[in-house]
Amino acid sequence: MAEHQQLAGIMTDTSSRRIDLPLIDHHCHGLVETELSDDEFRSLATESDWPGPAGTDSLDSPFGLAVRRLCAPILGLEPLVPIDEYLAQRRNIGAGAANRLLLRSTGTTEFLLDTGIPDARLLDPTAMAACAGARTREIVRIETVAEHLASESTAAGFVSRLPEALADRSREAVGLKSIIAYRHGFDIPAERPTGREALKAADEWFRAATTTGTFRITDPVLLRFGLWAGIDTGLPIQLHTGYGDVDIELFRADPSRLTSLFRATRSLDIVFMLLHCYPFVREAGILAQIFPHVYLDVGLVSHYLGPGSGTAVRQAMEIAPFSKILYSSDSYGLGEHYAVSAANWRTSFAALMDEWVSSGWATPKDAEKIATMVASDNAKRVYKLDA
Amino acid sequence: MAEHQQLAGIMTDTSSRRIDLPLIDHHCHGLVETELSDDEFRSLATESDWPGPAGTDSLDSPFGLAVRRLCAPILGLEPLVPIDEYLAQRRNIGAGAANRLLLRSTGTTEFLLDTGIPDARLLDPTAMAACAGARTREIVRIETVAEHLASESTAAGFVSRLPEALADRSREAVGLKSIIAYRHGFDIPAERPTGREALKAADEWFRAATTTGTFRITDPVLLRFGLWAGIDTGLPIQLHTGYGDVDIELFRADPSRLTSLFRATRSLDIVFMLLHCYPFVREAGILAQIFPHVYLDVGLVSHYLGPGSGTAVRQAMEIAPFSKILYSSDSYGLGEHYAVSAANWRTSFAALMDEWVSSGWATPKDAEKIATMVASDNAKRVYKLDA
Amino acid sequence: MAEHQQLAGIMTDTSSRRIDLPLIDHHCHGLVETELSDDEFRSLATESDWPGPAGTDSLDSPFGLAVRRLCAPILGLEPLVPIDEYLAQRRNIGAGAANRLLLRSTGTTEFLLDTGIPDARLLDPTAMAACAGARTREIVRIETVAEHLASESTAAGFVSRLPEALADRSREAVGLKSIIAYRHGFDIPAERPTGREALKAADEWFRAATTTGTFRITDPVLLRFGLWAGIDTGLPIQLHTGYGDVDIELFRADPSRLTSLFRATRSLDIVFMLLHCYPFVREAGILAQIFPHVYLDVGLVSHYLGPGSGTAVRQAMEIAPFSKILYSSDSYGLGEHYAVSAANWRTSFAALMDEWVSSGWATPKDAEKIATMVASDNAKRVYKLDA
Repeated sequence: MAEHQQLAGIMTDTSSRRIDLPLIDHHCHGLVETELSDDEFRSLATESDWPGPAGTDSLDSPFGLAVRRLCAPILGLEPLVPIDEYLAQRRNIGAGAANRLLLRSTGTTEFLLDTGIPDARLLDPTAMAACAGARTREIVRIETVAEHLASESTAAGFVSRLPEALADRSREAVGLKSIIAYRHGFDIPAERPTGREALKAADEWFRAATTTGTFRITDPVLLRFGLWAGIDTGLPIQLHTGYGDVDIELFRADPSRLTSLFRATRSLDIVFMLLHCYPFVREAGILAQIFPHVYLDVGLVSHYLGPGSGTAVRQAMEIAPFSKILYSSDSYGLGEHYAVSAANWRTSFAALMDEWVSSGWATPKDAEKIATMVASDNAKRVYKLDA
Repeated sequence: MAEHQQLAGIMTDTSSRRIDLPLIDHHCHGLVETELSDDEFRSLATESDWPGPAGTDSLDSPFGLAVRRLCAPILGLEPLVPIDEYLAQRRNIGAGAANRLLLRSTGTTEFLLDTGIPDARLLDPTAMAACAGARTREIVRIETVAEHLASESTAAGFVSRLPEALADRSREAVGLKSIIAYRHGFDIPAERPTGREALKAADEWFRAATTTGTFRITDPVLLRFGLWAGIDTGLPIQLHTGYGDVDIELFRADPSRLTSLFRATRSLDIVFMLLHCYPFVREAGILAQIFPHVYLDVGLVSHYLGPGSGTAVRQAMEIAPFSKILYSSDSYGLGEHYAVSAANWRTSFAALMDEWVSSGWATPKDAEKIATMVASDNAKRVYKLDA
Repeated sequence: MAEHQQLAGIMTDTSSRRIDLPLIDHHCHGLVETELSDDEFRSLATESDWPGPAGTDSLDSPFGLAVRRLCAPILGLEPLVPIDEYLAQRRNIGAGAANRLLLRSTGTTEFLLDTGIPDARLLDPTAMAACAGARTREIVRIETVAEHLASESTAAGFVSRLPEALADRSREAVGLKSIIAYRHGFDIPAERPTGREALKAADEWFRAATTTGTFRITDPVLLRFGLWAGIDTGLPIQLHTGYGDVDIELFRADPSRLTSLFRATRSLDIVFMLLHCYPFVREAGILAQIFPHVYLDVGLVSHYLGPGSGTAVRQAMEIAPFSKILYSSDSYGLGEHYAVSAANWRTSFAALMDEWVSSGWATPKDAEKIATMVASDNAKRVYKLDA
């Protein structure tokens, strides 16, 4: 980390200009440290739940190019070696050592980890800190807390105890996360459901669970009940928006469908972080300009777009104040996600700042200030990370 | 103005290439001439209704950079001076003189002013003409006329007299404006409401107004009733679409939701101007290609995107015939809006035309013709400004 | 063709870099060979159903520039001659000879023709093959088969015989096409309608047809019934999405509204081709990444965007695996559509590949492989064209 902390600002590096500031990755997940078969690697290298069609390779893709270009040298190979050579080298080095190299290539000083993905292979925040040589903090997923509570409660107990359970579970956390986008989409009323509404919905949920045997929260009243319990904690709330896996219906995950929620919560001393946003980055930027408590990032596409990730970075910078834009990678499982996102952000942001400076839109000092805000300062302020 | 009128075409200027043709700003509002505190300036420099979060400056933004880059030299400062120096200089010069300089920097020969914003500080068209040394014309806002009529009428009187009131009020105007996007969104039936439907809705509105004490038109039947009264005048109708203030739910302001209205009015000798359009510029371009009576602009983001405003200008030029694209700034309150929009359009459009010419897509004569159409000729034709 | 087949890869040509690989145009329509008046040419040169407003020329447009730049030299004129000279030369040469020159300029070895447009002037696949000196195959439009069957059947006969009629009609075809986007939009349930539902809807349709005298399928149950009959054939199904003529309400043609259909059909050994996609290219790319049986192209805007068509080509390459992206032109009527789409794709794709290679994102071999996949290999695989 020392090198990155010393070399503030926009630096020239051997291959191309990049911003060499320490990063805070305000939304990501844990790594998988177990050895992966090629198929398991490919499965973690896409948001798809299935292999590609016969006769194709899902790594013949923008992200596949990014792995070959950006990660191969980190593992001691030439850039753009064939993907099979890359995967062989990853196995030779071992998943643990490879992940360690990839993670440490990012220059990230702090990772805020959403621990809500139910994948037992994922490293927890402590193990992630050791692997990265960086600080980690936790983001607690509201729906995971709710589903866990439901599994050991009654309907009435669920409704009465969720606020306390969420407060308890997030005592050490710096923020919460909601996946309403996955479970229902954003067409929900803005208002907090009444206790009576919540109880009625919980009763139905628990009745259904007797049949299904699992508690998966999809009822919009219960999702809102959870979201408002989250709002009551006062912690920043991260919202998945836009692109994600097969559960998403994209048009329902357009963050502008949350406008009435943002109006209803404007004076509550709460903040919302719009995550990913692609292909609704412009909508998110507008919301971040209009609402003082709304922020955005373009994590996830920071790696999946490969050569095109700069497009998302630019769109994020079109209209929102610079204090409302954060860096994240939304990495999950593979060290490659963290490495590609950070490298892409560093070169894309440097290219944009270079362009602004060279064409007279900003001074070099402005550019460094803007880059520092997005790289870390905004996250420090909003999540109170220095406290 | 003389200089701009003489130097037609694409010219080289000291800093960068710009198009040096006279502009018609077919949609904007009046200036605020009173002296502004820094907070008041910031409030007028965003579509947000609230200050930014503590510890941030809402002018650390694309528009803030644009003010420092483009407006500072107009007020006698170096480009990119800190924003506080800029605001101090603006106060030293005085709001009136500063606005005069900023407005005259735009090379605009004619401003079409939407006078419907209820802000008593705004200059009227006559005062604007004096300040700008340019011609002004009026665009009458349908909803403002309707609300005013309601305040001095009965429900039955409102329904029977709105068409006449609108015709009277717009006798000297060159167009009308509707803000259905703000009040309800575009999910409305295309058909004219029947008199019976309008009367029923008006009855409810007047009953509610006895309680609220104000007439704010939000009922979709009444909004449509007003729109069709506007259509009956035969004047061009400007429609706010896309990005705007906190009242907008963006996805409801997608102009493609008006397709059935455009189908229903295609043969009525009426035209619709889609304003702003961001982030639905491509949708608007498609509609302007399909429907002979639909036009578009990218005002508002012409200044708020600052360094990125060229992106919107390019999107507007992707698919619509060049006869369907207009220049506007949607400026309001600050001379800086007019100055930034015009400067951005001039350099962005010049860059696009240069690119087309240098890569063989257009002759220099084509480029000048296209630029002249967008800068002024299309507005002259559609609004019959030479008549 | 020989020249194109020999010169594989990215080649330098006199004007600009272009990809000189044989193309398979996996979705287009037939040519009009009759002589066209200037008005008829203009009508075929836009998706609009009407002439532009008085005092304007609909060919003062991105596509008009493309015709003047790219097609004029093919007809023996200087690039960028005025459009009237171009139209005069086209008449001098004759529509048949001009179309032949334009079609053969494309380097297309195979055209997959949607024969469902009810325009008697259009060449059939055999005549198209002769004109182009290339192979043609047929894509059968589901709704056309359904409407034809209805016109000679009873409601009960329609329901019982549609699957067989579709199978019969497509015996020689390589794929099917559905225009649900035009007739209803994508807000349809994913499930196959029951026989009882289909019969009820057919009864109503046939009753209405006694009055209207025509069978135009717009009922969502019947549209789904047809789509599922298509799915049963096992052939690739092309879906119009996004931009099209006046019948489209764009937001309803967003392919992400089909997510539940894609989930419901994932394991059925069927593929869906999302056609055109503009302005939902990013949504389509996401769907093609998530679902192994979903593909996309940017035909139609490949010619209508003229100088901006490269934007759509780039968006298509942002997130989907390269095996999921195809070339098409969606040409219809004018040889100019085929010629402009192919030329635009060749130069836009070359520019993107050059950029990737020169900035280290891909090797020259990668670039050639990716280009070949999109140009023809993906189409060969999905439509089994070598079989």
